[in-house]
Amino acid sequence: GDAAAFDPMAAPAAGFTARDAAAPVASTGRLHKLELRVQEVVGEVAPGVRQTLWTFNGTVPGPVLRGRVGDTFEITLRNDGGVDHGVDFHAGALAPDEPMRSIEPGESLVYRFRATKAGIWMYHCSTMPMLYHIGNGMYGAVIIDPPDLAEVDREYVLVQSEFYLGADGATGDLAKMRAERPDAVVFNGYVAQYAHRPLTARAGERVRVWVLDAGPGRDSAFHIVGTQFDTVYREGRYELRPDDPGGAQVLDLAPAAGGFVEVTFPAAGHYPFVSHAMVDAERGARGLFEVS
Amino acid sequence: GDAAAFDPMAAPAAGFTARDAAAPVASTGRLHKLELRVQEVVGEVAPGVRQTLWTFNGTVPGPVLRGRVGDTFEITLRNDGGVDHGVDFHAGALAPDEPMRSIEPGESLVYRFRATKAGIWMYHCSTMPMLYHIGNGMYGAVIIDPPDLAEVDREYVLVQSEFYLGADGATGDLAKMRAERPDAVVFNGYVAQYAHRPLTARAGERVRVWVLDAGPGRDSAFHIVGTQFDTVYREGRYELRPDDPGGAQVLDLAPAAGGFVEVTFPAAGHYPFVSHAMVDAERGARGLFEVS
Amino acid sequence: GDAAAFDPMAAPAAGFTARDAAAPVASTGRLHKLELRVQEVVGEVAPGVRQTLWTFNGTVPGPVLRGRVGDTFEITLRNDGGVDHGVDFHAGALAPDEPMRSIEPGESLVYRFRATKAGIWMYHCSTMPMLYHIGNGMYGAVIIDPPDLAEVDREYVLVQSEFYLGADGATGDLAKMRAERPDAVVFNGYVAQYAHRPLTARAGERVRVWVLDAGPGRDSAFHIVGTQFDTVYREGRYELRPDDPGGAQVLDLAPAAGGFVEVTFPAAGHYPFVSHAMVDAERGARGLFEVS
Ligand SMILES: [Cu+2]
Ligand SMILES: [Cu+2]
Ligand SMILES: [Cu+2]
Ligand SMILES: [Cu+2]
Ligand SMILES: [Cu+2]
Ligand SMILES: [Cu+2]
Ligand code: NA
Ligand code: NA
Ligand code: NA
Ligand code: NA
Ligand code: NA
Ligand code: NA
Ligand SMILES: [Zn+2]
Ligand SMILES: [Zn+2]
Ligand SMILES: [Zn+2]
Ligand SMILES: [Zn+2]
Ligand SMILES: [Zn+2]
Ligand SMILES: [Zn+2]
Ligand SMILES: [Zn+2]
Ligand SMILES: [Zn+2]
Ligand SMILES: [Zn+2]
Repeated sequence: GDAAAFDPMAAPAAGFTARDAAAPVASTGRLHKLELRVQEVVGEVAPGVRQTLWTFNGTVPGPVLRGRVGDTFEITLRNDGGVDHGVDFHAGALAPDEPMRSIEPGESLVYRFRATKAGIWMYHCSTMPMLYHIGNGMYGAVIIDPPDLAEVDREYVLVQSEFYLGADGATGDLAKMRAERPDAVVFNGYVAQYAHRPLTARAGERVRVWVLDAGPGRDSAFHIVGTQFDTVYREGRYELRPDDPGGAQVLDLAPAAGGFVEVTFPAAGHYPFVSHAMVDAERGARGLFEVS
Repeated sequence: GDAAAFDPMAAPAAGFTARDAAAPVASTGRLHKLELRVQEVVGEVAPGVRQTLWTFNGTVPGPVLRGRVGDTFEITLRNDGGVDHGVDFHAGALAPDEPMRSIEPGESLVYRFRATKAGIWMYHCSTMPMLYHIGNGMYGAVIIDPPDLAEVDREYVLVQSEFYLGADGATGDLAKMRAERPDAVVFNGYVAQYAHRPLTARAGERVRVWVLDAGPGRDSAFHIVGTQFDTVYREGRYELRPDDPGGAQVLDLAPAAGGFVEVTFPAAGHYPFVSHAMVDAERGARGLFEVS
Repeated sequence: GDAAAFDPMAAPAAGFTARDAAAPVASTGRLHKLELRVQEVVGEVAPGVRQTLWTFNGTVPGPVLRGRVGDTFEITLRNDGGVDHGVDFHAGALAPDEPMRSIEPGESLVYRFRATKAGIWMYHCSTMPMLYHIGNGMYGAVIIDPPDLAEVDREYVLVQSEFYLGADGATGDLAKMRAERPDAVVFNGYVAQYAHRPLTARAGERVRVWVLDAGPGRDSAFHIVGTQFDTVYREGRYELRPDDPGGAQVLDLAPAAGGFVEVTFPAAGHYPFVSHAMVDAERGARGLFEVS
């Protein structure tokens, strides 16, 4: 299938497995070592729609990393792709010159940073044109827990991004990226995957949803139908806590911004989530919580 | 008139009456019962431009509801339209399955929710494609007062939304909605109505303006020329209060987000308001306060 | 060069001097008198791309004004252009009728306001169509310091805006403005000028960057590569302070909104800055801090 055949309402095949959206647990160690391999793969981004994806470790988005304030991350980036790539972690402050440099196919580098500030931080390929490298799938999230992070019953991570479909099996269409004409807007790399393979929760549980807007260009207006956010954390600060008299219906995020919301599902049922920019929900920025 | 004839600067006919923008007062009872009838009507959205509108109770936006934290709303939705419709109230948390279901022409349902969190909340048709149902006019606001809401001299409600004009007298153009090509951006359902029939206030009065961005797709960058916001409330929280040393020039809202601002007009005169995304102001997202 | 020849990656000529981005110091006097002359000039907005610009005092953006809460500004606006112009200062509250009126070529007016609220405030031409007057360059910033503003080692001001290129040497293209098709998105009036003539700082210094989004239409998602914002001030309020455990990666601004961020560059090196809406970074909303 190519872009002309793209149907954002189509159901995936019976064997389809959605990306696991459960948030990882931060390991107890204070040094996080990880290998990130740039891999150019052919993957499905919607039912029957295959694209060449540029990935970190084979998936779009790349792996979710997690730690605490004060932790050190030591990432070995290895370029197993066919063109130059690099990486930029928003989660740590450092001079970009060496760690964010582009490396050629077959090369590697070590990117070491200390996480001194809490938040959900984007990482992405640092090679120009970044519009194209991000548009082809090169992004992910690093969660650095706030010190006072409340315990919840479940935690999910959703990364919103866009696809600008190229020919069947090819990379994305740079002209569409430049013209701001996305075909698909998705959570965790696949059109409406959680509408077909819902995220789960139980009535009365407290659920935290981390959201990162990887762009490359669209805002997110994240909303969960049937719920109200009693906790909102956005770009490093709490905007709402449960004892505030107000609630929120939308977590609005600019490209490269992130945060989390917390909800309690009041009863069993099916609770859709969307970006409330309705054209994006229709393009695939939607999913479902199945609450038992 | 059809879309080709649309002139966002045209003046309405002499007999034109603008939508009343005054905020309703919350009734003292704690149970709010209301019938919402879905009615498909032909209405004017700009001078000489008539469209088939899908409405709640005959107007775009639908009625503004108002209550206090703890109040219960019991809405009887009756579908007097020609296709399926439904409703989704952000103002209350509940399992969507039953209350938000689509009902056929001639059917009704009862939607009951308790408002436990303050804010200005969107409601809208819940039937797919929501882009089209919202694009045709199916949205409104529910205000749940914060417990400490200050008394002011006047209160207005402005709901920003877009029209994607179809043929003369027809429904909106779904292709334009999908291509993100709005013809008109409006407050309270009509191009620049308050530029021609100004909202009123007196110099020195304290005025609160509630704003909800119903979309379906555009942000709002609400600004009142000649004033500064000394109070800003956005998505359930105060961002500025009068004793803060700073002020705000813009209330920025993503689709489905809302809040209020407060201003004091320093002297008699004419104070325009706009979405400061200038192309939207030109498309009709503008009005006027006439201050005596 | 005309729009067809526009290359957002081109380097400026050897003699190119970037706009000075250093924030002005507030004078100690409490009355700020200034003449603003509207001048229509031909200027370069990207290497080899010349446009007729409508300016305040000959530059795009116009001059940055600065004062403290309580100060009075007395601006003499003189229209030395060929069509009507006017001015609207968000930094003060007043009835728009007289001070914001359009004046004809050769006329002048005095615009007097008292700044009672802190923030970074837009000013812009008040003549219709504002989309066109702002699109042609008529905007600038007024900084009113918060009372508790911390001392920093350096302060910069960046005004983001768009160009919709007309023919070589002509004014901007109004049809492109209405179609939301910017050719260039820039900081301080010139495509990627600070990528070629970097802003400077020293490692360990505390640097404040004021950002105003003049639009007329695009949001800004301001980000400095290699840094984290430990202080964020947005539309009149602090959203993050250095002792908060969280940090921010993006300052998101709607058109006509502004604020500042503070960073410490951890080591010598080259730190790019962008609007993280990647298509805008590619169009010219990028620059560089050279840190020694
Ligand atoms: Cu890459
Ligand atoms: Cu909704
Ligand atoms: Cu409907
Ligand atoms: Cu303005
Ligand atoms: Cu002008
Ligand atoms: Cu980045
Ligand atoms: Na999904
Ligand atoms: Na935004
Ligand atoms: Na209006
Ligand atoms: Na937004
Ligand atoms: Na620049
Ligand atoms: Na926005
Ligand atoms: Zn290379
Ligand atoms: Zn909803
Ligand atoms: Zn089920
Ligand atoms: Zn049906
Ligand atoms: Zn203004
Ligand atoms: Zn009047
Ligand atoms: Zn004139
Ligand atoms: Zn970065
Ligand atoms: Zn250098």
